[in-house]
Amino acid sequence: MSLIPTPGFTGSPLVRIDIERDNQDYFDQAVSSLSARLLRLDGLKPVLEPDGSLSWGSLAEADPDVDLALLGLIDGKPRFVALAPVDMRQDQRMGTINGAMAMTEPGAPATYAAARSLVDWHNRHRFCANCGQRTTVRRSGWARFCLKDAGGCGAEHFPRTDPVVIMLAEYGDKVLVGRNKNTMQGKFYSALAGFLEVGESIEDAVARELFEEAGVIVTEVRYLTSQPWPIPSQLMIGCVAKVESNVVTLDTNELNDAIWVDRDQVRAALAGEPDALFTMRYPLAIAHTLLQAWANGA
Amino acid sequence: MSLIPTPGFTGSPLVRIDIERDNQDYFDQAVSSLSARLLRLDGLKPVLEPDGSLSWGSLAEADPDVDLALLGLIDGKPRFVALAPVDMRQDQRMGTINGAMAMTEPGAPATYAAARSLVDWHNRHRFCANCGQRTTVRRSGWARFCLKDAGGCGAEHFPRTDPVVIMLAEYGDKVLVGRNKNTMQGKFYSALAGFLEVGESIEDAVARELFEEAGVIVTEVRYLTSQPWPIPSQLMIGCVAKVESNVVTLDTNELNDAIWVDRDQVRAALAGEPDALFTMRYPLAIAHTLLQAWANGA
Ligand SMILES: [Zn+2]
Ligand SMILES: [Zn+2]
Repeated sequence: MSLIPTPGFTGSPLVRIDIERDNQDYFDQAVSSLSARLLRLDGLKPVLEPDGSLSWGSLAEADPDVDLALLGLIDGKPRFVALAPVDMRQDQRMGTINGAMAMTEPGAPATYAAARSLVDWHNRHRFCANCGQRTTVRRSGWARFCLKDAGGCGAEHFPRTDPVVIMLAEYGDKVLVGRNKNTMQGKFYSALAGFLEVGESIEDAVARELFEEAGVIVTEVRYLTSQPWPIPSQLMIGCVAKVESNVVTLDTNELNDAIWVDRDQVRAALAGEPDALFTMRYPLAIAHTLLQAWANGA
Repeated sequence: MSLIPTPGFTGSPLVRIDIERDNQDYFDQAVSSLSARLLRLDGLKPVLEPDGSLSWGSLAEADPDVDLALLGLIDGKPRFVALAPVDMRQDQRMGTINGAMAMTEPGAPATYAAARSLVDWHNRHRFCANCGQRTTVRRSGWARFCLKDAGGCGAEHFPRTDPVVIMLAEYGDKVLVGRNKNTMQGKFYSALAGFLEVGESIEDAVARELFEEAGVIVTEVRYLTSQPWPIPSQLMIGCVAKVESNVVTLDTNELNDAIWVDRDQVRAALAGEPDALFTMRYPLAIAHTLLQAWANGA
């Protein structure tokens, strides 16, 4: 078990109290509680205290015209986030990643990830996909309903999480890492990944993605670990897949290179050694966890 | 590996050729190919040949006003499904399950699952959630775009798959199965389950759900297997979770009973023995696979 490090964006201390989300009295009491706290965001980017902890304000800071979501409880205190309009044309990716990397509080990236994904989802889902009417925030901020008494169709919409498989093809004592087609120079390589589709299991999706992207045939899939990735809202499902052969046929729409690496080469890359065969971005990403776990023998 | 049976709705022979989905020429050639086949559906329910195989017709059977989706290739032949309007007020759940159970062709339930989820998604997502405009089918039937030149916002929408964790709490040599609150009589029990939420890993969601539904504290999660569940489009993620104690506190909003069962009791239930402690519905559901795998020692 300890072979697998804890992935980034996991381990939030948030107690989600889903059971009370339909209870308007509970929500109202939480809003009026003196201990209620509001997660401060800058658009979708985190706001941190000087010590690297999440920054929480009072609910008085929220625009009264904006809906609140009750994230849950931390230390017994109700924790809210404002479902405020965000300029979605602005790319907030690096602000999100750098902010999360600067967090020093255990579990803080996971708490922030939940809030960020929720605010993002509300921003891009203000209308009913079934009938086109405007929808209304319900379930303490965890749903949008298309209300019949407002002329809607009655459909209920819930935050979306898209499963992504991310995997290391394994052949003998090496695994495959690939370089994104947009990375024309540098040594940035990572695990291959792709969205799981309707009608697929995790194992089906791993086999399909590795065949499509690298032309390798999977004979066995082993799940290692998972993480939420909050840009905007993926579930990253990390696996190692044994393959029949080490002959790779690249999908050049996705990748411009792929290399087989052994455990020593992986360790050198993870350690950031200057002469390492490759370099990895984003330590919070599960690709790190996967490679570290595999180098550990998982 | 062989401890874990193959879950239902997996193993489709479909080759999805995602790489060609944006290629309109490829799509047009597939449509005009003499080998093109159309999956026959009755609403969302499967249509079977007398021998229990999926029923495929020619594209001439499709309403010319209805968009087609290219599912992929089987035996080198392009396979389509019509994105036809379906009366969604009609509950097609039992027709789906009974139809899939009657299939005798390996992988047929998985091929059908992909088609059913896709048709269902288009039916309930004809409008843009971002701006409320009507959207247009794109990517060979695998997306809906909100086209700017039709007055839309440019958002791109893809079929949705909702991850669900389904798990057996394990204490000593027993696991926990629960009875849904709506099952007032009978011996129907199954694994506990719930939707994974934004900002959660699989392991986080398993721990939260078991604590919420049964009041048990998870100390270790092991993933066993997964399946797509096509009503409408879930990814079922099957796990076993060791828990600290066998003292259960039920969430009576979800369950009206839960019992700890040992391997012999699980085997008797799976075999449908008349004096078994409990009974299970839906052999295609991953709860069967999980319990069988656990009884096998997985
Ligand atoms: Zn509606
Ligand atoms: Zn739009």
